[in-house]
Amino acid sequence: MFKFEILHRSQKSRARVGRIHTPHGMIDTPNFVAVGTNGTLKALDNHMVDSIGLQLMFCNTYHLLLQPGTDVVKRAGGLHRFIHRKMPIITDSGGFQVFSLAYGSVASELKSSGAKKHDGHVLKITEDGVLFRSYRDGKLILLTPESSIQAQKDLGADIIIPFDELPPYHISYDKLKASLERTHRWEKRSLDEHLKNPQNQAMYAVIHGGVDPEFRKQSCDFLSRLPFDGFAIGGSLGKTKPEMFEMLKTLLPRMPEEKPNHLLGIGDLESLDLCVPLGIDTFDSSYPTRAARHGLLLTSEGGLKVLKKEMANHFAPIEHDCTCWTCKHFTLAYLHHLFKANELTAYTLATVHNLHFMVELMRKIRESILSDQI
Amino acid sequence: MFKFEILHRSQKSRARVGRIHTPHGMIDTPNFVAVGTNGTLKALDNHMVDSIGLQLMFCNTYHLLLQPGTDVVKRAGGLHRFIHRKMPIITDSGGFQVFSLAYGSVASELKSSGAKKHDGHVLKITEDGVLFRSYRDGKLILLTPESSIQAQKDLGADIIIPFDELPPYHISYDKLKASLERTHRWEKRSLDEHLKNPQNQAMYAVIHGGVDPEFRKQSCDFLSRLPFDGFAIGGSLGKTKPEMFEMLKTLLPRMPEEKPNHLLGIGDLESLDLCVPLGIDTFDSSYPTRAARHGLLLTSEGGLKVLKKEMANHFAPIEHDCTCWTCKHFTLAYLHHLFKANELTAYTLATVHNLHFMVELMRKIRESILSDQI
Repeated sequence: MFKFEILHRSQKSRARVGRIHTPHGMIDTPNFVAVGTNGTLKALDNHMVDSIGLQLMFCNTYHLLLQPGTDVVKRAGGLHRFIHRKMPIITDSGGFQVFSLAYGSVASELKSSGAKKHDGHVLKITEDGVLFRSYRDGKLILLTPESSIQAQKDLGADIIIPFDELPPYHISYDKLKASLERTHRWEKRSLDEHLKNPQNQAMYAVIHGGVDPEFRKQSCDFLSRLPFDGFAIGGSLGKTKPEMFEMLKTLLPRMPEEKPNHLLGIGDLESLDLCVPLGIDTFDSSYPTRAARHGLLLTSEGGLKVLKKEMANHFAPIEHDCTCWTCKHFTLAYLHHLFKANELTAYTLATVHNLHFMVELMRKIRESILSDQI
Repeated sequence: MFKFEILHRSQKSRARVGRIHTPHGMIDTPNFVAVGTNGTLKALDNHMVDSIGLQLMFCNTYHLLLQPGTDVVKRAGGLHRFIHRKMPIITDSGGFQVFSLAYGSVASELKSSGAKKHDGHVLKITEDGVLFRSYRDGKLILLTPESSIQAQKDLGADIIIPFDELPPYHISYDKLKASLERTHRWEKRSLDEHLKNPQNQAMYAVIHGGVDPEFRKQSCDFLSRLPFDGFAIGGSLGKTKPEMFEMLKTLLPRMPEEKPNHLLGIGDLESLDLCVPLGIDTFDSSYPTRAARHGLLLTSEGGLKVLKKEMANHFAPIEHDCTCWTCKHFTLAYLHHLFKANELTAYTLATVHNLHFMVELMRKIRESILSDQI
């Protein structure tokens, strides 16, 4: 059922326009993937998300494992039925979150000197997997390549991700090497587990290797030889966007051209501009929805802070030519007021607009690639 | 433009089925009026509220005066345009809130012995009006019968309310008498101010008199002689529902039969059952929307606590025959999960259901009156 077709390759860059076919429909690429950690985008119901036209939604296995439990989702008939989503879903392995518990999040760790300890609730990391304690009910959970894939089988997303280690940014050469080798073994075990019962799901490998270009190449070469359906790029790619750009520029030409590439956890506007020409096909990020809840509205002329004083009397939509639900019915002045009054409706309306903006932006990007302008 | 017609009087009680015609359409009575303090129901956008069929929405002048300011709403073209609501709106005078600042809220005051002081931000109460300090920006605001009506002219609701004093429950006979007399003078001043420029708005008098039946009668008689378009019953009606019931039972037969009656701030299910047979036409309350946010779902078989453990695996709608957006698309198990995960979407979906429930309940109540069962 899973198929990736490339419709056009830009003459100007490595950008391409394609289509990912899944059991729940098509994803036009390049595309933006919104994050609905717990099975909902924050402040939006999934029916509205559908109507905005978001083609791929990212849900987090770690969170769904702890609440409601993947057994509940399985009994509901899978994640699509449970959350009432008709279009494609991608889930991750839970590795990112358990290792964030152990080492701290990528963002906070980048800012630190690496000396900070983040014991969190992780009790043991072995070759088998990671033993941690649920922050919800204190239950011990062993996450292994096999149990992560089983959880993702219960969820039944269209695209799933092998269990991997998220190494800290501050790490020695030897430790990074050991981490990468173990990640490769874990990804292979994940793939084996998946292939026992593919269930019409596709699996993307996760390329690791931290900020070491040689390790990244090794990861790319090792994983390309295995029958994954696509590739995700994970872990730290550098401290700055130029560092990330340089890394991806050398990495992407090495990756199998006929398979889709996903950039994990990065989808801000600047990164989209930088990475689409390198050949990244999908980007997931909570940036546009989180920005919305903080009152930052995305427009073709840049971010607009809804709480600024002058918005109080702006009796026009966020963007006059925007066709989103919010712009069609409400003014900036009203949105400003709702934010000032701390009304939950503010988050919903701002999120609708930002998500619609991303969907439209990606459509325009695809058009630009088709006419070789990107 | 404003007109009240009675279509049917029950043979069993004083209940009646009617229609209030306003510049923004009709309100079938008896009906429930949802509270959208700041110009939005909490967690619902007004377009959704329309589609649920809520015919009358209550907005608070006090809150809108402080944020965004009634001048902003006026510049937007009035409250309907500002909040994008096509159906009727009722606003109050702000009196309830400023006197709650001064004396404490009705609820908290009922529980106390009356000894508590609530100076709040009220600086002075005189014959002219109430001087208070905005909790938002510290600005001094003088709310008088005239300024309250001017604010309500700026807002442009279909039904407006004269400025009144909310006397505390714990009050001496003499003080209650003085308060009532001043309220009557204030209501008369409000009406005079309103009639200078009716702007197609209707004004409901507010009957006061606290828990003293004689004062209530006096209030009813005094206000009935003035050309108000309808009547609201305000202030404390007693400590318990039976006390409220007794008071309303003696009061309502005294009120002009051909005008609509509104019960201020009371709209829980038990009170609806008690008061519809007495002839109350409209009820405003934040109960169903607040209950929703606390995970209490209204059903024909009583309140259902969504956070109860057994809901986790309930893969069916809240009510199988409910036609609301939430029940049509989502299961109780999913709602339970969203509440457990503290997702904002939970509040939206629960509010949609509870509001739809109230709209349907009132429709059924009207049907029962039409067939003389109530």
